Amino acid sequence: MVDIPNSPEPGKSPEPGKSSGSIKNPERAKKLQDLREAMATHRIDAWIIPSSDAHNSEYVAPHWQGRAWLSGFTGSAGTLVVTQDKAALWTDGRYFIQASEQLAGSEITLMKDGQPGVPSMAEWVTEEVSELGCVGFDGATQSLSNVRNLKMKLADKSVTLKFDHDLLNDIWTDRPALPAEPVFIHEDFYSGRSLTEKVADVRKILQERKATELLITTLDDIAWLLNLRGSDIECNPVFLAYTLISPERIILFINKERIEVGALAALAKAGVELADYDEISRRLSALPDATRLMINPVNTGYKLASAIPASISLVEDRLPTTDLKAIKNSTEISRMKDCYRRDGAAMVRFMHWLERNIPTGQLNEVNIDEQLLQFRSESEYFKGVSFPSIVGYAGHGAICHYRADEASAYPVKSNGLLLIDSGAQYPDGTTDITRTFACGEMTDEEKRDYTLVMKSHIALATARFKEGTRGIQLDAITRQPLWSAGIDFNHGTGHGVGYFLNVHEGPQSISPRWFDVALKPGMLVTNEPGVYRDNKHGVRLENIMLVADDIENEFGKFLKLIPMTIAPFDTRPLVKELMTDTEIQWLNEYHKMVREELSRELIGEDVEWLREATNPL
Amino acid sequence: MVDIPNSPEPGKSPEPGKSSGSIKNPERAKKLQDLREAMATHRIDAWIIPSSDAHNSEYVAPHWQGRAWLSGFTGSAGTLVVTQDKAALWTDGRYFIQASEQLAGSEITLMKDGQPGVPSMAEWVTEEVSELGCVGFDGATQSLSNVRNLKMKLADKSVTLKFDHDLLNDIWTDRPALPAEPVFIHEDFYSGRSLTEKVADVRKILQERKATELLITTLDDIAWLLNLRGSDIECNPVFLAYTLISPERIILFINKERIEVGALAALAKAGVELADYDEISRRLSALPDATRLMINPVNTGYKLASAIPASISLVEDRLPTTDLKAIKNSTEISRMKDCYRRDGAAMVRFMHWLERNIPTGQLNEVNIDEQLLQFRSESEYFKGVSFPSIVGYAGHGAICHYRADEASAYPVKSNGLLLIDSGAQYPDGTTDITRTFACGEMTDEEKRDYTLVMKSHIALATARFKEGTRGIQLDAITRQPLWSAGIDFNHGTGHGVGYFLNVHEGPQSISPRWFDVALKPGMLVTNEPGVYRDNKHGVRLENIMLVADDIENEFGKFLKLIPMTIAPFDTRPLVKELMTDTEIQWLNEYHKMVREELSRELIGEDVEWLREATNPL
Repeated sequence: MVDIPNSPEPGKSPEPGKSSGSIKNPERAKKLQDLREAMATHRIDAWIIPSSDAHNSEYVAPHWQGRAWLSGFTGSAGTLVVTQDKAALWTDGRYFIQASEQLAGSEITLMKDGQPGVPSMAEWVTEEVSELGCVGFDGATQSLSNVRNLKMKLADKSVTLKFDHDLLNDIWTDRPALPAEPVFIHEDFYSGRSLTEKVADVRKILQERKATELLITTLDDIAWLLNLRGSDIECNPVFLAYTLISPERIILFINKERIEVGALAALAKAGVELADYDEISRRLSALPDATRLMINPVNTGYKLASAIPASISLVEDRLPTTDLKAIKNSTEISRMKDCYRRDGAAMVRFMHWLERNIPTGQLNEVNIDEQLLQFRSESEYFKGVSFPSIVGYAGHGAICHYRADEASAYPVKSNGLLLIDSGAQYPDGTTDITRTFACGEMTDEEKRDYTLVMKSHIALATARFKEGTRGIQLDAITRQPLWSAGIDFNHGTGHGVGYFLNVHEGPQSISPRWFDVALKPGMLVTNEPGVYRDNKHGVRLENIMLVADDIENEFGKFLKLIPMTIAPFDTRPLVKELMTDTEIQWLNEYHKMVREELSRELIGEDVEWLREATNPL
Repeated sequence: MVDIPNSPEPGKSPEPGKSSGSIKNPERAKKLQDLREAMATHRIDAWIIPSSDAHNSEYVAPHWQGRAWLSGFTGSAGTLVVTQDKAALWTDGRYFIQASEQLAGSEITLMKDGQPGVPSMAEWVTEEVSELGCVGFDGATQSLSNVRNLKMKLADKSVTLKFDHDLLNDIWTDRPALPAEPVFIHEDFYSGRSLTEKVADVRKILQERKATELLITTLDDIAWLLNLRGSDIECNPVFLAYTLISPERIILFINKERIEVGALAALAKAGVELADYDEISRRLSALPDATRLMINPVNTGYKLASAIPASISLVEDRLPTTDLKAIKNSTEISRMKDCYRRDGAAMVRFMHWLERNIPTGQLNEVNIDEQLLQFRSESEYFKGVSFPSIVGYAGHGAICHYRADEASAYPVKSNGLLLIDSGAQYPDGTTDITRTFACGEMTDEEKRDYTLVMKSHIALATARFKEGTRGIQLDAITRQPLWSAGIDFNHGTGHGVGYFLNVHEGPQSISPRWFDVALKPGMLVTNEPGVYRDNKHGVRLENIMLVADDIENEFGKFLKLIPMTIAPFDTRPLVKELMTDTEIQWLNEYHKMVREELSRELIGEDVEWLREATNPL
């Protein structure tokens, strides 16, 4: 599932007035009006609503979906700013088309983040708010680093920041409550390392970093560390909590009623103290002066950070848990293979079903997704999807984060391409796979684009790279076959993946954006290049790969990527003449592996279909 | 000529005790002793001597070569730190072998910068200097950003910094004076843009950046801006100066006696005020409070920066002149073609001579360089070499910055490989070219390494890339053929190049190190991958390339690289079977261009030799 966007291209929006969102929406206008009245009451000139929660989660519980509630734009990334006479929404290249449709008919201006000439949110606010003005936001959901950045921009203007009262509470009368789903154990059998061992690993790093206390705010870090899981956020098996760790004690701040008995016992056994979720601020404010507190300012809410006494020293960096979690241990890697085999078998049954049923003319983007869910959910291990599937036929395939509904769903005809990006949660892993299918006859352009994406995918899959290589370097190697053909795609090549956790997991990333994170053995990354032609088709081919040791010699240590995802690629659209021998060889070997791994997971005609589908080119 | 090093590999140093540097050097010990006495007198616990001058030049005049004078290590990059009981020298991967040889027999520990487990200079100093201690350095030659970084590291220790007196002056009795060579005009015919136009360009950027004053400390920026040249630094046609620009006036701080009459007149005509070189501090300290002064903290000496009143605002960034200079204008590009043709013709005559003379058994690394200089200097336009040639036969080719002398020079036999990296200064450009030559029979490894470097060179030469691409991305594309073969090289792939200026010129760079600089049309970069096998051979193949517009379509704007260097590659070591059709095609087309461009520059047997040398593969 595509993640971090590329520096976006000038987006092509559909004509306004033609999309469903274009109808004037009196409810939305009323909400903006209510907000402006609340702003006036509190003497606030600009109100900022980000997409985040108090834990800087990528996907947030409905309680924190205020930006979508107010603006109507439902994408996962976007920031709305409202002043008395203006309203503007910033989002990135993944969402230009969707945002443009969903904002149509409103007074909200779409700001295409990163485009030439488009001011950043902070720049815009600086411009709009006058000297001695007041900028407000919910301090819980803006990170310390975001607010620092904003303060720097506003430095010349003597602007006041108000952050301790969330205006949305005043106007959003039916605002959903905070989630409080059950919290359960993720067994050591799966995690491969006990809570106690993980805490010891973290404490060792704290000692190295000369920190005496660690604040963990990110939900997947907490779930990973404590070997617990929940379901507070759709598709993300996490739960709302904070954690404080010192060399002597560990405190979990959580609504404890919902912790299952077994999990409670495990926490008690490991000596984890429990405190209320809301208690965190008070505990932070009571830290003694000699504390050296490690936090990640990117993930720590500004309001929470404001509770930290000014007298204690901060060690600001990525959290040790984030780095530890990213390197999958040998148990996780070995369990994960079962998960990919299971998911791959569901995919094969689905692909076979798809091929049989396209000619009936009964399929559309919604019922295809239902059937895919059906195949996956037949496994007793299935714990839900890891993100809402992207099922995009023809032109819909070109919308990177398209989500079909009954109103928008295209019927699937017997020609062209169908892009399906989907994944699932299992106790032994999180999957994320994209395949693009030939629905029948294809244009030459569709075949060529498909083949070029396959070449791009293989460029990364076959890459050998020096220890210390960063994602941006692998991104360039991946894009080379596309760039040569004068093609580019507007999102990152790959992202880290959790283990029965979030489908997007850092710190690693394969992207044209610079992240100072070296790829290391044990990390998972997706390999998902694509080609998108507006209103025509989209192609994306995605496997999850494991970073692994390769050769070591006088020139140093080299790494490679091993595919973890086990499912055939549709070979029907491939133009063999455009592929090199090495590329064909890689694909044939991959398909041989897929056949060997999945045959015993399947029965009946599916076995024969798989044999056909994985025939050497 | 190789520039910025890669994250270096564990270097393999020759056995100590075998190199000439291993003999105990009483003179060096005496100098260290003198320094320590001076340190004691001034109550300084650690003294830092960088490789830089007051202008952060890469190569410095003898006056500032104190680190070499004191340590014996003559590489272009290295920092020496001396305490009462220790001495350590930091240098990078390019110089591990050389430094290890030159420091042998001294008490100075070689610190291999960037190697795992090796502390940075700042870390080491922090460790060695005790609470309330004193760290000293010549504040003129340490940049503001270096000192800030050092201060941050030392923050916990209440350490004092002493920077206003250079201890070297006390002990270096025969210290060379500051250079004061003639300063002459670089005609508009060559520069393509007058001094007045360039100053207007700079002022426009100052206005955009809301700056009211610009301090230029970098010598090539000053030479470029004023259309002047000098020869204060070996191989770099620059002169010692500072420049201050406001919207109203421009001041050149320089030893004015040495400005040639024509140049003086041009400066006067353009309204450039002159002031003494040493006057700069006083003028900075007198800037009014309302000044918004733009400086680059990386290039501004700490002592100079300390003269700036604390009350004025700083705009800290890369200087506008650096960015403007990097984009060659159409006149420069068109003139430059003459320069590359002229230099290429000298190279062809040299290559032909080399091929004829290797069998005589009379050649060695030194007389080969003399002959190359002879061919180049026969042109009336020749203004000297752009850097000391690297002529490395067999194992010497594996030492990236090898400089042969009568004592070290290998005789060249009729087998193996000879690497020659050289360049020249002309009024219409600066050249930098590396070719590796077959001297006769070659091992399979030599042929394979040569072919892989050729593939790597072609990977960059044929790359099409998106607008906004950074050097690190192109570096990965270049290394791919080598990484695939399990090979890497320990320096950047390419660097910017001046125009009758420094052979290494920023801000662009093609390197595995991250620099946030997009490649832009009009920039020059070298393309110089290599393979180095210790004590066996080195291969490097280098052309200068021009960044140019390629296609533009729905996916955006793409760029490409056009070779500017015009000289044949030795095709004899190539293993054709290892090359793809595309690679062979590129090489054949390049050679066709070389033949067409150079034939009319040559006479007699050289023409026939060129025809042979550029025959299609």
